[in-house]
Amino acid sequence: MQVAQILIDGKWRDADASDTFRAENPAIGEPLPTAFPVSRWIDCELALNAATAAAIELRNTAPERIAAFLDVYAANIERASEAIVAAAHEETGLPASPRLRDVELPRTTNQLRQAADAAREESWRRPTLDTQKNIRSVLSPIGPVIVFGPNNFPFAFNGVSGGDFAAAIAAGNPVIAKAHPLHPNTTRLLAEEARRAIIETGLPSGTVQMIYNMNNEDGLKLVSDPRVGAVGFTGSPAAGLRLKRAAEEAGKPIYLELSSINPVIFLPGALAEDGERLARELVDSCLAGAGQFCTSPNLILLWNGADAENLLAHVAKAFSERAPQPLLSAAGRKHIQEGVAALIDAKAQLVTGGAVVEGPGYRYANTLLRITAAQFLTQPHALQREVFGNATMALTVGDHKELEAVLAQLEGNLTGAIYSAQSGADDNIYDAIEPLLRQKVGRLLNDKMPTGVAVSPAMNHGGPFPATSHPGFTSVGIPASLTRFAVLQCYDGVREDRLPAILRNKIANPRTWRSIDGAWVKG
Amino acid sequence: MQVAQILIDGKWRDADASDTFRAENPAIGEPLPTAFPVSRWIDCELALNAATAAAIELRNTAPERIAAFLDVYAANIERASEAIVAAAHEETGLPASPRLRDVELPRTTNQLRQAADAAREESWRRPTLDTQKNIRSVLSPIGPVIVFGPNNFPFAFNGVSGGDFAAAIAAGNPVIAKAHPLHPNTTRLLAEEARRAIIETGLPSGTVQMIYNMNNEDGLKLVSDPRVGAVGFTGSPAAGLRLKRAAEEAGKPIYLELSSINPVIFLPGALAEDGERLARELVDSCLAGAGQFCTSPNLILLWNGADAENLLAHVAKAFSERAPQPLLSAAGRKHIQEGVAALIDAKAQLVTGGAVVEGPGYRYANTLLRITAAQFLTQPHALQREVFGNATMALTVGDHKELEAVLAQLEGNLTGAIYSAQSGADDNIYDAIEPLLRQKVGRLLNDKMPTGVAVSPAMNHGGPFPATSHPGFTSVGIPASLTRFAVLQCYDGVREDRLPAILRNKIANPRTWRSIDGAWVKG
Repeated sequence: MQVAQILIDGKWRDADASDTFRAENPAIGEPLPTAFPVSRWIDCELALNAATAAAIELRNTAPERIAAFLDVYAANIERASEAIVAAAHEETGLPASPRLRDVELPRTTNQLRQAADAAREESWRRPTLDTQKNIRSVLSPIGPVIVFGPNNFPFAFNGVSGGDFAAAIAAGNPVIAKAHPLHPNTTRLLAEEARRAIIETGLPSGTVQMIYNMNNEDGLKLVSDPRVGAVGFTGSPAAGLRLKRAAEEAGKPIYLELSSINPVIFLPGALAEDGERLARELVDSCLAGAGQFCTSPNLILLWNGADAENLLAHVAKAFSERAPQPLLSAAGRKHIQEGVAALIDAKAQLVTGGAVVEGPGYRYANTLLRITAAQFLTQPHALQREVFGNATMALTVGDHKELEAVLAQLEGNLTGAIYSAQSGADDNIYDAIEPLLRQKVGRLLNDKMPTGVAVSPAMNHGGPFPATSHPGFTSVGIPASLTRFAVLQCYDGVREDRLPAILRNKIANPRTWRSIDGAWVKG
Repeated sequence: MQVAQILIDGKWRDADASDTFRAENPAIGEPLPTAFPVSRWIDCELALNAATAAAIELRNTAPERIAAFLDVYAANIERASEAIVAAAHEETGLPASPRLRDVELPRTTNQLRQAADAAREESWRRPTLDTQKNIRSVLSPIGPVIVFGPNNFPFAFNGVSGGDFAAAIAAGNPVIAKAHPLHPNTTRLLAEEARRAIIETGLPSGTVQMIYNMNNEDGLKLVSDPRVGAVGFTGSPAAGLRLKRAAEEAGKPIYLELSSINPVIFLPGALAEDGERLARELVDSCLAGAGQFCTSPNLILLWNGADAENLLAHVAKAFSERAPQPLLSAAGRKHIQEGVAALIDAKAQLVTGGAVVEGPGYRYANTLLRITAAQFLTQPHALQREVFGNATMALTVGDHKELEAVLAQLEGNLTGAIYSAQSGADDNIYDAIEPLLRQKVGRLLNDKMPTGVAVSPAMNHGGPFPATSHPGFTSVGIPASLTRFAVLQCYDGVREDRLPAILRNKIANPRTWRSIDGAWVKG
């Protein structure tokens, strides 16, 4: 049997495999032909050694060359996009177009190019000079970064091409990517383009490495290894919290993105003004990617009454009419089944859906549940269970006091949205509830759905625990996301000619913003 | 028996005490009269409730008022300085002058005023505007901060007046301070000045609270309580790592400063040029505060040869001639005894000192140990044990390869210093070893001792684990230290009039630096 090779220190090589696995085509539920290895520890060991060497070399590499790598890699992905999109479509069931080819792939290459530009500009390093005391500090690379990508974005969050990857590399660190086992072939094709880009730009061979899988124990060993600088993880709370414990026990920063139910609040005036449009927006947002987005709205809060019933009727109708998209895996469907059952157990009422859809692939009926505030408040934790997929729960409140009580029970989320009347009719309620929601979410939206996550310097794709592991950082948005993979290095009384170029009195890079004696200047 | 009261929600009140304790005068080894309570959980509960209410109110408090509090508090401390210095002298044995009155107290009030200015300026919040996409983000208060201060700086790192306190308050958070049990009365006097300043400036009564002590279990419960935003801790690795585990399990950011041996490297040319001056500088640095500084040099690296022997002879002579200062406690002396014994067990050779000094108070002979690189490399972990106090170990190397091997084994430290010849004779060695040392320390110094920690915006009082718990943050240096106690909050498509003032298109504060569409501007 032929088994795919892993990428270690610039070369494709046979894994020391304890086992193999195959991906499936989830749209038809059929296994795909290629076998991929589950690595034994020795593969991690080889990767760690190569990454350690690369980390040292990268510290002496001009930012321009790291930027060039990211740019060349982006171009390589575009050149190979047909094969990469085909592989991702086969492994994820996501539409080749527009989703994979026209949305996610351009987003991914755009992200790599923004990261290249941040590396080139160097402002992300926040160089800070106290010229009077001759004390200077700057953010510097943290060392080898382990990236675990999630199942739902085979390009934009892939460990070998996504946001964590781009941030870690742009910050000057080598990456060891663990492929998600649902799309190993996509990851292999991306890694090959990274490998070529490394050769073309002359970066150290250990700059990008990729392993498909390993057992849990070796995963924990990997994130707590002394050679590791930091870890990025996007995925399930169960796996993420295990890795968190191991990494933190070893003193390693680990940045997790775990779960989020992304509350969307429709204030009464907004519903009265344009309920049908809001219903359409909501349906589109809930069913995008079969609801398998980190920012998919899982909890809709609205006022008891005719407008709410109208909106829910529209949503229920659209949910039942639209063909459910294939889910990413059998396990994902099982997760939805269990989640919906648990919500119903906790007294949520099924409005539509709530059943597996027979036929090819892994599909689950688009599902709408509902519950009252009073019921929610009896079991707030159980009723905040994230159902990752095409299931959403509406929660009706009698008045804003009830809404406030619900918001007070909310756990940490990536996003929270409030739709309010353009007329200003909802402004008093907005003012009362905004402070409560604000503290529970990383990104607060007005009059729009949370599923779009722009790659903007002002973006926060982060939020309070348990949405992420640190509320001060974002995993999307450049240059802020780079700072996760950096250490603060201070130079005290160090002679001018020994300082890194970025901290000398005169700087060659005309684009770098520096804080000099309290003022931000460049050039 | 009269028992001191704790400060809860703006009022001095009786603790629910499970026990009481007294401080000692360590210079004479005599217990002091006042009894202080060990609180039961209910005291923490009351403090948490008041802090939660204060946190909400502080979010709607103008930065100017928070700044005013910090300024008034600094002035109050100065007005009450005679009593505060006397209490601290009595409880710590540290000289009233110059140390407490003329150095640490002005440093503390200066730190509070710098924090006030940072709160006023607001640039620490890193407001970031993407005006085209209308996405804006800003650092905002994280919520109640628990601060555990260390034994060695009764003012400048005190939980109720020190660096973590100033940073947490300036960032808009209430603080619950746990007093260090070695200086409860000093802490009480400081807390009283904070209480007065709160009244004078009208801040919420729960803004500053203080509890003297609690059992370990309640300490763990406190740092992992859902109401807590973050934790700052400076102290021993044993206690710190217990708190770290508990806080991180609950998803709370915790910033620890634990231990550091602060390597100082004398390159051969530097010793040849001015060995005697370096010996004097080293002795002063090692014995400052009886060596009880986080940045005290515990490990001196130097080349085998006559110059090294000369330097060590000078140091040994000065160590044996200078009267050992009183240590902070009997426990501290026991820790030194055990540490020195452990180093000797690991084959370090005693040059001078190495014994308890009889007489009043807790004193230990100024102690110099030495070891060769070859010996060090046989047990590098055991030989990096921090001995917190007036004991230092010299390590001699045969050549720069041996030095490199030693540096490769170094664990994370706050500081690392290299002295090199002014003539340039050491430049080649410097270039070879700097990259190794750089990765192991938060602050790299040239030609100076690490014991001075300037409160500069460019300072890093931080470093890789196990020196601290996160290598990206500093606990000294304003405004950077404030960012530890903040969350990133993003506003996506939020209507202009609902944005916080700092994120609107026009800003009233002329001093605030903002990053607008990639450029830092103010006004």
